[in-house]
Amino acid sequence: MKTLSIGLIGTGYMGKCHALAWNAVASVFGDVPRPRLVMLAEASQELAERKAQELGFERATGDWRALVNDPGIDVVSITTPNAFHPDMAIAALEAGKHVWCEKPMATRLADAERMLAAARASGKVAALGYNYIQNPVMRLIRRILDEGQIGRVNHVRLEMDEDFMANADDLFYWKSEASSGHGALDDFGVHPLSLLWVLLGGVRRVCGHMAKPYAERPVQGGGRRAVETYDIATVLMELESGASGVLALNRSAWGRKGRIFVQIFGSNGTIVYDQERMNEVQLYTADGAKEAQGFRTILTGPQHPPYDKFIPAPGHGLGFNDLKIIECRELMRRIAGEKAHLIDFEDGIRIERTIDAMARSAHEGRWVEV
Amino acid sequence: MKTLSIGLIGTGYMGKCHALAWNAVASVFGDVPRPRLVMLAEASQELAERKAQELGFERATGDWRALVNDPGIDVVSITTPNAFHPDMAIAALEAGKHVWCEKPMATRLADAERMLAAARASGKVAALGYNYIQNPVMRLIRRILDEGQIGRVNHVRLEMDEDFMANADDLFYWKSEASSGHGALDDFGVHPLSLLWVLLGGVRRVCGHMAKPYAERPVQGGGRRAVETYDIATVLMELESGASGVLALNRSAWGRKGRIFVQIFGSNGTIVYDQERMNEVQLYTADGAKEAQGFRTILTGPQHPPYDKFIPAPGHGLGFNDLKIIECRELMRRIAGEKAHLIDFEDGIRIERTIDAMARSAHEGRWVEV
Amino acid sequence: MKTLSIGLIGTGYMGKCHALAWNAVASVFGDVPRPRLVMLAEASQELAERKAQELGFERATGDWRALVNDPGIDVVSITTPNAFHPDMAIAALEAGKHVWCEKPMATRLADAERMLAAARASGKVAALGYNYIQNPVMRLIRRILDEGQIGRVNHVRLEMDEDFMANADDLFYWKSEASSGHGALDDFGVHPLSLLWVLLGGVRRVCGHMAKPYAERPVQGGGRRAVETYDIATVLMELESGASGVLALNRSAWGRKGRIFVQIFGSNGTIVYDQERMNEVQLYTADGAKEAQGFRTILTGPQHPPYDKFIPAPGHGLGFNDLKIIECRELMRRIAGEKAHLIDFEDGIRIERTIDAMARSAHEGRWVEV
Amino acid sequence: MKTLSIGLIGTGYMGKCHALAWNAVASVFGDVPRPRLVMLAEASQELAERKAQELGFERATGDWRALVNDPGIDVVSITTPNAFHPDMAIAALEAGKHVWCEKPMATRLADAERMLAAARASGKVAALGYNYIQNPVMRLIRRILDEGQIGRVNHVRLEMDEDFMANADDLFYWKSEASSGHGALDDFGVHPLSLLWVLLGGVRRVCGHMAKPYAERPVQGGGRRAVETYDIATVLMELESGASGVLALNRSAWGRKGRIFVQIFGSNGTIVYDQERMNEVQLYTADGAKEAQGFRTILTGPQHPPYDKFIPAPGHGLGFNDLKIIECRELMRRIAGEKAHLIDFEDGIRIERTIDAMARSAHEGRWVEV
Repeated sequence: MKTLSIGLIGTGYMGKCHALAWNAVASVFGDVPRPRLVMLAEASQELAERKAQELGFERATGDWRALVNDPGIDVVSITTPNAFHPDMAIAALEAGKHVWCEKPMATRLADAERMLAAARASGKVAALGYNYIQNPVMRLIRRILDEGQIGRVNHVRLEMDEDFMANADDLFYWKSEASSGHGALDDFGVHPLSLLWVLLGGVRRVCGHMAKPYAERPVQGGGRRAVETYDIATVLMELESGASGVLALNRSAWGRKGRIFVQIFGSNGTIVYDQERMNEVQLYTADGAKEAQGFRTILTGPQHPPYDKFIPAPGHGLGFNDLKIIECRELMRRIAGEKAHLIDFEDGIRIERTIDAMARSAHEGRWVEV
Repeated sequence: MKTLSIGLIGTGYMGKCHALAWNAVASVFGDVPRPRLVMLAEASQELAERKAQELGFERATGDWRALVNDPGIDVVSITTPNAFHPDMAIAALEAGKHVWCEKPMATRLADAERMLAAARASGKVAALGYNYIQNPVMRLIRRILDEGQIGRVNHVRLEMDEDFMANADDLFYWKSEASSGHGALDDFGVHPLSLLWVLLGGVRRVCGHMAKPYAERPVQGGGRRAVETYDIATVLMELESGASGVLALNRSAWGRKGRIFVQIFGSNGTIVYDQERMNEVQLYTADGAKEAQGFRTILTGPQHPPYDKFIPAPGHGLGFNDLKIIECRELMRRIAGEKAHLIDFEDGIRIERTIDAMARSAHEGRWVEV
Repeated sequence: MKTLSIGLIGTGYMGKCHALAWNAVASVFGDVPRPRLVMLAEASQELAERKAQELGFERATGDWRALVNDPGIDVVSITTPNAFHPDMAIAALEAGKHVWCEKPMATRLADAERMLAAARASGKVAALGYNYIQNPVMRLIRRILDEGQIGRVNHVRLEMDEDFMANADDLFYWKSEASSGHGALDDFGVHPLSLLWVLLGGVRRVCGHMAKPYAERPVQGGGRRAVETYDIATVLMELESGASGVLALNRSAWGRKGRIFVQIFGSNGTIVYDQERMNEVQLYTADGAKEAQGFRTILTGPQHPPYDKFIPAPGHGLGFNDLKIIECRELMRRIAGEKAHLIDFEDGIRIERTIDAMARSAHEGRWVEV
Repeated sequence: MKTLSIGLIGTGYMGKCHALAWNAVASVFGDVPRPRLVMLAEASQELAERKAQELGFERATGDWRALVNDPGIDVVSITTPNAFHPDMAIAALEAGKHVWCEKPMATRLADAERMLAAARASGKVAALGYNYIQNPVMRLIRRILDEGQIGRVNHVRLEMDEDFMANADDLFYWKSEASSGHGALDDFGVHPLSLLWVLLGGVRRVCGHMAKPYAERPVQGGGRRAVETYDIATVLMELESGASGVLALNRSAWGRKGRIFVQIFGSNGTIVYDQERMNEVQLYTADGAKEAQGFRTILTGPQHPPYDKFIPAPGHGLGFNDLKIIECRELMRRIAGEKAHLIDFEDGIRIERTIDAMARSAHEGRWVEV
């Protein structure tokens, strides 16, 4: 595998997370060459330089176009706000770079479709940052499903809840503006749908509903402004597999911090997962003596790869940032032409289209085909 | 309070549960006169006599009409299969008896409406056996809501799951016949809806979906028969209060035994309840130092009446059958003209109409007003 | 089985619990004759009469000696404070009655030994009210152990914690007087030791320690008084089986309400039980694929007898009072000469001697043989 | 703060963990200069070179003495088996290097005392790798204690359990040899004692017990060999603060993977922590309305520093390896002369002496002063 030269655009939450992953991936896995952290782009040259120093990049620029066009760069990490993804990703792909873009692809479906077209035209790897699918727990669930341990899946429930919009007294900010999207549906929905996609495949039909817990919010300096987005969304689903499903999202759910709750019901068992306890999964199978059946709490350990690359002892716990390191290696493998577990633009557009159908369904008050 | 004379029809699961409650209510509460267990009706005289002996009733009959017309009886407990409820309840009410009828009221909405008319005409107490609402936890939740501890409720999620229909190899029996009802929707739905009713009030609009995990089942003696009911149901709801909601039901949910999972989200906090751990409730309020906020697991105790009437020490646990004893005393209080916490036919019809709207919605694939 | 005539002494917490059990046992089990509730004794004739009315007893007396000597009584339930147990139990046994006495046997070991002698001399059934052992969960654990599912047990940990002595501002009352016993050790210790006895057998050597969280307590009317008992106790144990063990008790443990936490470690698995969730048990066995091993949460149901006699559906939950009903039937079976699961005076003295050894060990600061 | 040049000895479990921390610390915290990873020592030159490449070190050596004496190195990470710690740490300190040595200090107390003497003589920072104390949860607990939220602590229980020695059929290896130490006591005991030390201070008196679940183990090639170490240990403690305590350790505890269970009881509340769910802590305080009291599950988030340096969103979860990154920064701060949260050789010797007293107590069957 050849040494990759990396460019990073953006140094917020996810920018730092990418930088940590690029820094750590070789040490953790030992089977990929240590990437060169070549260039970092931020809104200003000054900020870029400070962050490059902090995050271990060689050069800095205040102009992201300089980065995507730099001949010394192989891969571009795009971690800016979603509205910037299309221009940056398309430019990078057109410049012949591989792209690692944070999810969701874009704020409008049409933009996402343009990104996909650019990816196809470029022949480069265009990956999305769906890190939750990288949890060793998800590989275990996938294996449990593939081996038929819970039989044929007939029903699934997905929930995602956090409370960063729960305080009615918080000031109006851009997440309550219609230009930011629908609300919980696109802000949150992509996460559980990414899990659904890798575990159970696509969605056929949906019927959605959206609600506003707070009709208006205070504005800095006084007065109140009408909230334009929906912090709560619920959706009925029919999957392509024939299973029925339900999705419930709430970004004003007091007490929930990073909950993604997944319940998968099959003809021989049930799987339950909670992202807030990301190192565990619950499994029930209708096997063995009836008197001793129950949900098993499986703690991840070295028997659940690639946990073993981080810690040789079981039950010690991976963290959220570790998932991005796993994703980083999958990306490197994909770039090297190997089989890799990733959501690329081809898969990603499926998720975006599903979200779009849900939103239309909610607005029109009827079932919609994806 | 005058001593009540009791007649019991049916000695299955709920019949025994009623008998235990009538036997225990005076000893537990100490503030109601010990009821006289006068007559028990079963399908045959012989069975009735054996059960009367077992359950402590003075007399026995193989003819339920004899019981409802017996002048020595004040209250009739009706615990037979749902299809028998209308005839028995109406006859008992017409004979001037108070009625304690197991839920749901009937298998068809029209019958339930007739039962309500009979109750109104009689002027007698006509109560339904919605025992889950009697859990001291529910009174605590109600109090938390009334005191505004979690603020204004804006979203609710209800789930009910058991696994008695989960085994695909189980023989076809009457629960898979269309004549038994819709499936999970009416079989299960009344339970979470009873909690919803007493905690948050009525439902305005619904959009439902129903699914069959198994298209057919084996028949005794060989062959297979098409399943006519839906073991899975999911419903989007708009409550009269304006809150949004979702209901998910699955009677083929491997591993779930008596799960009724309730999540109530408000503008200042969240309540979570799981019937499988019926002596606990989770409460999160956005109060106090942020660094120490979290879901509190409240264990019931004597500070949650009427737990104290059963056990003076906290955390020792009530059981499912205890809820019926509480319900029994509420009924006695209602009969004595006191304020009581009960779902009577007036409330019950609201639940039945809601279920009916959900079923219509599922069949028609559209939103329906309740 | 002949119909038994019952006398009850005491109507506090446990007196009511006995009365409820005698009232319900025939209805629940259907295989024992309905007992006659003949006579109730309380401190005064007036109180006795009121309570007899409430609890369904035919006659009442203010003199417990009249009750134990009444020729119409077969079984005497003794539920008075522990200090009264010896006189009452011995008198009842000498009068030829069967005795059902609440635990512990006595406040002094010498008294317990006298009670055992009286039981032996009488030839009557002398049972103790160790209700926790009657939980269907305990029968399941016993079966798991007998079947070798967790292999040979090599280590056990027992904890019992409640918080009724946790408030340092509560007034001094008799539980802080030396005359009441050692403190947590005898007040609590008998419960986990009763579980240990039926699950794993006797204790060979102990090394104990006792501590006072509060050196003194306020006295009614002003001033403070030195606390004479120990609300905290910890003990190292060697079991007769060779397993090592530890016991930790705290009746000033804020937040714990009825916790009895049991961890049993064996050569092939582990069992974990928490009395605050008395309808569950956790089981881990080192069987099957390593990647899917985990603690199973088993919910009790009809497959765990005699749960089925209370409720035919699994996961619906027994309550604390139900355990006494099970115990009552075991007593009736023992009286009828059948095999029964009970701790009688012969077993009970083993528990008392173990507690006594623990207390001596704590006072002397060294290991003591039981 | 000056840039530090790092030497790493050992590349096993903890060696990799140190390397990851040195790689990540500047990116995560942004307030310390990026360390130079200068030299790596392993058992052979060849292995050292391969690992240096993998872990990002500039140079490699097969001779650890060359590393500790290299003038270009400021800090030496020592992550070799415990028996090597004394020679390496003393040599590094004598060569004027700061030392970051994995716990425990040594396999014999006398060696640990020599290490302390060397540290004192050198005037350099001599830190131990007690990473569990770096969990933001521990800072929160410490703050809760300092603020008196649970009042005066009067009782503590510590448990540590894993199952890597649980399989009786596993071959005899060095952990069963007496030369490796006592067994669970020193192998595990240092971890909970490190938490005890930073949260509640020192231990005054102990009374220990040790047990062997398996008397012998199979030997490669046939036959069996007597086990010389004790996989189970239990200890009664009196803390210097006056609180009573108990410690229970089991490295043959099936199903436990990384459990460190801590229960701290105070005069106004209780704290419960489980390392297998390292992003949570349970807190009960006897405050507010009694009916709403319960254990609160607090999920860590940015309000619990330095969680915020890793992830700005709460409830997303740190991992085991992240704790070492926090520790690394504390070390860098200490080297820079700033106040830091670390267990150095001065504190570490207290833990070693406590373990030693526990072992003596167990062998002599009596209480021992620390």
